[in-house]
Amino acid sequence: MTYELRRLGIDTSAEHVAFLSADELLCQCLGLHPLDRVEIASGERRVLAILNGVTSDLLPLGTVGVSDAAFRHLGVADGDPVDVRPADPPGSSEVIRRKVAGEPLAANAIDTLVRDIAEGRHSKVELTAFVVASTIHGLSNEEVLGLIRATVASGEQLHWDADVVADKHSIGGIPGNRTTPVVVAIAAAAGLTVPKTSSRAVTSPAGTADTMETLMDVTLPPERLRQVVAAAGACLAWGGAFKLAPADDVIIQVERPLAIDCEGLMLSSILAKKVAAGATHVVIDIPVGRGAKVTDGTAAGRLAERFTELAAPLGLTVSIELSDGRGPVGRGVGPALEARDVLAVLRGDPTAPADLRTKGIALAGRLLESAGAAAAGRGPDRAAALLESGAAYERFELIRDLQGRRELPAPGQATFEWRARGAGRVDGISNAVIGRAARLAGAPRDVRAGIDLLVAVGDEVSAGDALFRVHSQSPVTLGFAVDYLQGRPGNPIEVVPA
Amino acid sequence: MTYELRRLGIDTSAEHVAFLSADELLCQCLGLHPLDRVEIASGERRVLAILNGVTSDLLPLGTVGVSDAAFRHLGVADGDPVDVRPADPPGSSEVIRRKVAGEPLAANAIDTLVRDIAEGRHSKVELTAFVVASTIHGLSNEEVLGLIRATVASGEQLHWDADVVADKHSIGGIPGNRTTPVVVAIAAAAGLTVPKTSSRAVTSPAGTADTMETLMDVTLPPERLRQVVAAAGACLAWGGAFKLAPADDVIIQVERPLAIDCEGLMLSSILAKKVAAGATHVVIDIPVGRGAKVTDGTAAGRLAERFTELAAPLGLTVSIELSDGRGPVGRGVGPALEARDVLAVLRGDPTAPADLRTKGIALAGRLLESAGAAAAGRGPDRAAALLESGAAYERFELIRDLQGRRELPAPGQATFEWRARGAGRVDGISNAVIGRAARLAGAPRDVRAGIDLLVAVGDEVSAGDALFRVHSQSPVTLGFAVDYLQGRPGNPIEVVPA
Repeated sequence: MTYELRRLGIDTSAEHVAFLSADELLCQCLGLHPLDRVEIASGERRVLAILNGVTSDLLPLGTVGVSDAAFRHLGVADGDPVDVRPADPPGSSEVIRRKVAGEPLAANAIDTLVRDIAEGRHSKVELTAFVVASTIHGLSNEEVLGLIRATVASGEQLHWDADVVADKHSIGGIPGNRTTPVVVAIAAAAGLTVPKTSSRAVTSPAGTADTMETLMDVTLPPERLRQVVAAAGACLAWGGAFKLAPADDVIIQVERPLAIDCEGLMLSSILAKKVAAGATHVVIDIPVGRGAKVTDGTAAGRLAERFTELAAPLGLTVSIELSDGRGPVGRGVGPALEARDVLAVLRGDPTAPADLRTKGIALAGRLLESAGAAAAGRGPDRAAALLESGAAYERFELIRDLQGRRELPAPGQATFEWRARGAGRVDGISNAVIGRAARLAGAPRDVRAGIDLLVAVGDEVSAGDALFRVHSQSPVTLGFAVDYLQGRPGNPIEVVPA
Repeated sequence: MTYELRRLGIDTSAEHVAFLSADELLCQCLGLHPLDRVEIASGERRVLAILNGVTSDLLPLGTVGVSDAAFRHLGVADGDPVDVRPADPPGSSEVIRRKVAGEPLAANAIDTLVRDIAEGRHSKVELTAFVVASTIHGLSNEEVLGLIRATVASGEQLHWDADVVADKHSIGGIPGNRTTPVVVAIAAAAGLTVPKTSSRAVTSPAGTADTMETLMDVTLPPERLRQVVAAAGACLAWGGAFKLAPADDVIIQVERPLAIDCEGLMLSSILAKKVAAGATHVVIDIPVGRGAKVTDGTAAGRLAERFTELAAPLGLTVSIELSDGRGPVGRGVGPALEARDVLAVLRGDPTAPADLRTKGIALAGRLLESAGAAAAGRGPDRAAALLESGAAYERFELIRDLQGRRELPAPGQATFEWRARGAGRVDGISNAVIGRAARLAGAPRDVRAGIDLLVAVGDEVSAGDALFRVHSQSPVTLGFAVDYLQGRPGNPIEVVPA
């Protein structure tokens, strides 16, 4: 049947949802349960969407509303005629059921599944079933390789005119920790090609793309990106502009918020993005410690091993850096505050956070060695020298100029200081609480919002000393963060009697 | 912050969803991922809802839209002022994560989880994680008992003035199979108290409540229900009017469409509803065979054992009837067509479907024996006698009169006959295909829609013989069903050369 398409302007994340008056015949025979779906088509363009019934006069008879994701995917204009018909669940629903049943998935089954995921044919419910089943049963290296290959094939793939293309990734979970720009600037200064594409935040207070966007344009058309890389040897762009491994973007929309870590999906997510971005040599940061994704050395070692096993058949060289994951890295958490720390490290500012500088040098050093820009054991020294000489900063400023410079925004002017209740030594800083508070304050959408840590683990403090400052552009969102911090038991920064 | 509440009229099934302009500060710091949620409060009334951003002028600044489920749960008027604030995931998200990790759940953890589920605090994503984890790890009898007790406590509980309260349940999955009214009428005629409360369809073409509603009112206030049961010894009501085990209604909204069978959740669902309905003696129908939920006798025996093990500590007496689940039971699939079959069996019509009659007698017989209304081994004879004498039909007609009689609607006048391609013997009828086609034709919302089976397994047919007829009130939905049937390979009714 033909309906008039209505962009309802409802953002349902990655899920494709169609809205139809409950009085429509189509809604009478569907829409009874949350996996009922329709196919909306206009010529060759088509989208599969979950059906929600509308019980008000929001949508007149003869019109079909769509969520933003479905509207973008369909790619036709508001008001255009479209055909709507009942649709069966995608064929790969059976693949998900097989994974739930514990059966290993063959490459062709994974191909079908990933294609359906990239096309938005699965609902959040089905995606969750796949994520949870993969978490519980695990994913073999064969399955992860199948996922990586299918995920890369689901989107665009970048190719660079260089034998060695360097890249860097952190498995995440640590607020602040904005080492990427430091590593990229050092590696580019060392003569490596480092066309860095980064993601935006899903559940964290900032992704590298969010942070870099406070200092430069990060949404670049492919030809502009190539010019930047040709001139500077590197870029710091938002990967979302290039549709790299889009199936992965859909999966992490349900995986991250669930806060259950599926090792196989994490390996596939990271490596698929690297292959799609055209990398050959990748340094991977695995933060280890209480409150991090990996809590002990044994688990970290096993994870490092899997990265190496998977990289070889993909033609990737990975080097692994295990780092201290017990608390945030750097002082700022949130786009502008993190960008401030990054600039301080690159400029060689004496007040720059020492942990961010040290970690940046360690990661860059490992990458230089792995990519042939430093002799074995000489990477960290070379990295430190490139930082101290100003060569890395110069390279960073060149990238800013080439991509389109922006000036660092000041932290939000609505602030709240969190003070020490008693004297003692700082024993721990909660990654989860600091991250959540920074988000409630408005990060990453409010780029000036976040948390500024005023102490580091090991510092001595007196009662009443400020431990951190919450920043926001608005007293309202500042209030959300403060309500959260004050409403929970315990302290986000643990101070033990010295 | 205070917003004006807007009932948007969007039916998101059981999920509570809030809609807020993407320009609102609250939406700026939340709404980035599909588990971000807000608490909406008006005095003591409050609801936790997933946040969807609105990118159009659908909602002016200062207003908050809510899905139908959230609106009903909140229970305040359209246009009322409400407070909206960011909310953390419910505490029992941790319980779900523990189940994903394979840890056994203690009774108090289950209590918290079920309370949160009943209050609509979990999203579809979290509910799916729980269902899938429970499917893969399984649920111990202790966990199932914990779920049953918490689920019963999550809603109302009916109490009857009788020592023996009889009930009947089928684990489902078989189209048609409308034995409940037959069993209830026979058991009531035998003098038992049978206050039957039934559900509506979730993924099937009709629930018992949908079918009975074509013959009588089924939405009765509690006091009316009591009057009916006092006068007739039985009723045939829609259980949804009584909020029996509401947490279960929320779980099956995601479990059923996923089409993965979690034994523990099925046991909990069925037994919680029976306990909440005040039953003491329950006969349970387990259809067995290819295309049924239970495919072989061994699995059926194990399931029967678990029912018995769980029933004892709940003070329930269950008796199990294993039945032939290889195809639909009766001829009609869809509310009016099934009601027609039920009436034919109760009236002793010679054209009544023999399988429905036989199965009704078997189940009723077992219930009579278990509840003390027939000597051991004499149940089926007594049941058959009550059916043949017209006593059961008389009782059924009394219930219709007391609840509010409706006359059987004629099957939909738009029809399509599916014919045999070649001559042979009917070897099988697909439960899944017949059920799906009946739904696409409009069942259960179009009560006249469905499938009328014109042959049974074992019948000899000639090429061109009509095998079944699709009915609908509208050529449009008839078209949906026919497109589906013609679009799939193979035949919904298998005919093998004789």
